[in-house]
Amino acid sequence: MKTSIPFPLPLGFLASGVHAGLKSNSKLDMGFIYTSRPAIWAGMVTRNAVKSAPARRTEALLKKGKPLKAVVVNTKYANDLTGKQGYRDAEDTAKWVAQSLKISPDEVLVHSTGVIGVPVPRPKIKRGVALGTAALHSEGGPEFARAILTTDLVVKTSARAFFPGGKPAWMAGFAKGSGMIHPNMATMLAYVLTDAAISKPVLKQALREAVAMSFNRITVDGDTSPSDSVVVLANGASGSKPITRAGGADYQEFLKALEAVCLDLAQAVIRDGEGATKFVTVEIAGAKTNAEALLAAMAVAKSPLVKTAIFGADPNWGRILTAVGYSGAAVNEFKAIVSIGGYRLYDGAPKKGWSRAKLKAILQKKEITIWVDLRLGKGKSTVYTCDLTDGYIDINGRYTT
Amino acid sequence: MKTSIPFPLPLGFLASGVHAGLKSNSKLDMGFIYTSRPAIWAGMVTRNAVKSAPARRTEALLKKGKPLKAVVVNTKYANDLTGKQGYRDAEDTAKWVAQSLKISPDEVLVHSTGVIGVPVPRPKIKRGVALGTAALHSEGGPEFARAILTTDLVVKTSARAFFPGGKPAWMAGFAKGSGMIHPNMATMLAYVLTDAAISKPVLKQALREAVAMSFNRITVDGDTSPSDSVVVLANGASGSKPITRAGGADYQEFLKALEAVCLDLAQAVIRDGEGATKFVTVEIAGAKTNAEALLAAMAVAKSPLVKTAIFGADPNWGRILTAVGYSGAAVNEFKAIVSIGGYRLYDGAPKKGWSRAKLKAILQKKEITIWVDLRLGKGKSTVYTCDLTDGYIDINGRYTT
Repeated sequence: MKTSIPFPLPLGFLASGVHAGLKSNSKLDMGFIYTSRPAIWAGMVTRNAVKSAPARRTEALLKKGKPLKAVVVNTKYANDLTGKQGYRDAEDTAKWVAQSLKISPDEVLVHSTGVIGVPVPRPKIKRGVALGTAALHSEGGPEFARAILTTDLVVKTSARAFFPGGKPAWMAGFAKGSGMIHPNMATMLAYVLTDAAISKPVLKQALREAVAMSFNRITVDGDTSPSDSVVVLANGASGSKPITRAGGADYQEFLKALEAVCLDLAQAVIRDGEGATKFVTVEIAGAKTNAEALLAAMAVAKSPLVKTAIFGADPNWGRILTAVGYSGAAVNEFKAIVSIGGYRLYDGAPKKGWSRAKLKAILQKKEITIWVDLRLGKGKSTVYTCDLTDGYIDINGRYTT
Repeated sequence: MKTSIPFPLPLGFLASGVHAGLKSNSKLDMGFIYTSRPAIWAGMVTRNAVKSAPARRTEALLKKGKPLKAVVVNTKYANDLTGKQGYRDAEDTAKWVAQSLKISPDEVLVHSTGVIGVPVPRPKIKRGVALGTAALHSEGGPEFARAILTTDLVVKTSARAFFPGGKPAWMAGFAKGSGMIHPNMATMLAYVLTDAAISKPVLKQALREAVAMSFNRITVDGDTSPSDSVVVLANGASGSKPITRAGGADYQEFLKALEAVCLDLAQAVIRDGEGATKFVTVEIAGAKTNAEALLAAMAVAKSPLVKTAIFGADPNWGRILTAVGYSGAAVNEFKAIVSIGGYRLYDGAPKKGWSRAKLKAILQKKEITIWVDLRLGKGKSTVYTCDLTDGYIDINGRYTT
């Protein structure tokens, strides 16, 4: 997996991860990013109508549009449904970071994830800020990657070199998330750092395009978190040619790297889905429109009956077209084609002589592709999901996460 | 539970349940209803765009609008995604019943439920029709109730006496369903028989009203089946005063009985939800509109994170308002109130000093009511669901159902 290779931070960035005593074991529970050069940034915040204090503060900073110099994340308390006090806690966290780094609170992004409805313990957060800002260093990426995890079992990172105007630039991404994963944006925390130079509107558009094809194409359980965000920071420290126009060759070079990093991170989230044992790709083709293809793909990817069948390697393929049927997409069951792992099962009617044993063998693999051609138009879409297992029930039923 | 009390069929109805050899054990697998007097009927069929052959045939008969004399159900093969042959099989099943009972095929409703995408075994069905039509008798209700079950663990029946125009009439209902349960209509098989006299348009309206408050207010797993239907047959054999106008006192009397029977059956489906250990009522008040309240209630009732927390008695109440947040309903987290089992946890902010231990004790009960007041308007809605458990994963992952 690409995500396990260690790599340097882009030029001008420092990072750290510390144990502030929020989590009862000795796990890292606060993460920090700092850039010596102010970074242009873009971000997308959860569309849940209930938003955490940090999520609303992020929205306010996005509106102001000033460059960022630091990010602080706590991964024990979401600071969501915590009333007005939650907003004071988020603002004070920014102030503590700003004081320590001698910058302005408006240059500090505050993120939180974890349990909902519990106020953050201010003294511990304050101590964590002191520890974390002192620990910042240029090889702190792996610590940051670990610090932002909650129920995750593995770190999720990805990096790409790219060459706007022929000069090298670097991009590194970090994500956390394994439950409460569902579009729309943003259903986890993800940070992408780059030392490329890029203008704000162009960065914003690139993020929107990249997220549409990555984080908004994954689902674990259909629950959309109120906390989570994806942000990209570009500090220009590489000295590469500034990208100031969407659509040109340099923009495509940047977008290709950003899409690749975001897709790596999104797929890593699915691979680490709570309780997941299998990675499932759902491809819909031949829908009337791309929008209908996405509806259909999401319905299949969300269906508990499809996801449990995949877990149990139950050759119950009828559940797939059933989910398409209630997705809202147009479907004609006498035209549609269904394949699993390249094995065609249905073509307007069940394929004569399809073998349960053969399908079961395909379903026992760790990576499964479901393919449906509706044969009604040119719309297509791909989404990623995982199976639904006893492990998911266990993680979410037995522990307050 | 009311549903376990045996009761007579309404006047003029016969029923039976037989083992036609469709299921490998000796379980009853075909059910039959016959009425000596032609019955006015109304029905609602799944809104899944993918429909089984019997579901489409039911729609066609509904359009024709002629009275019914018989119903036949097989509960092993859904006859869905079976191509054109499935339509011939459904029609021939009707013919076999019609020949045996000396009625017209258009007077025979054919229903199927069970595994998708597998053709029905015609010789066994034909033999089952011979057995089942011969076995019809006036005390066959319990056999029919058992014969229509699939993964259900208990029979689901309900009955009411009512008095249109002061004269007694009788209503009896039967349902099957425990997975793939979600609105909209009809997410299971349900049959309501009555010996009241009622006109067709009035019966149709009463069914629509009753279903909206019962079967369309339950969810087990969010999957909508392509097979299922709810029908009500009224044969007038009681000699009670014909109900020919919606809205009058006799209509209200009829509707009250129909709503009660449908709600009994719907709640029985939830109590028997696949793997369910708890019955959960979700009440939303104070939404901007009733439609938004229903969106919010359904989002809470569908949320895997809420449902697993209830299974594990995890006092993680923040997941409830989170689900409301992504439901599409307007919500202001500084105004909303959340209670579980009457214990108030959140009132614009977490209630000071709420006790995890006390909440955990409430969540360990078998019946749990979640109550949210959004305090934005007068919209309200109640839906019913169950918890999400290892048992659900087991049933749906390990067996082709």
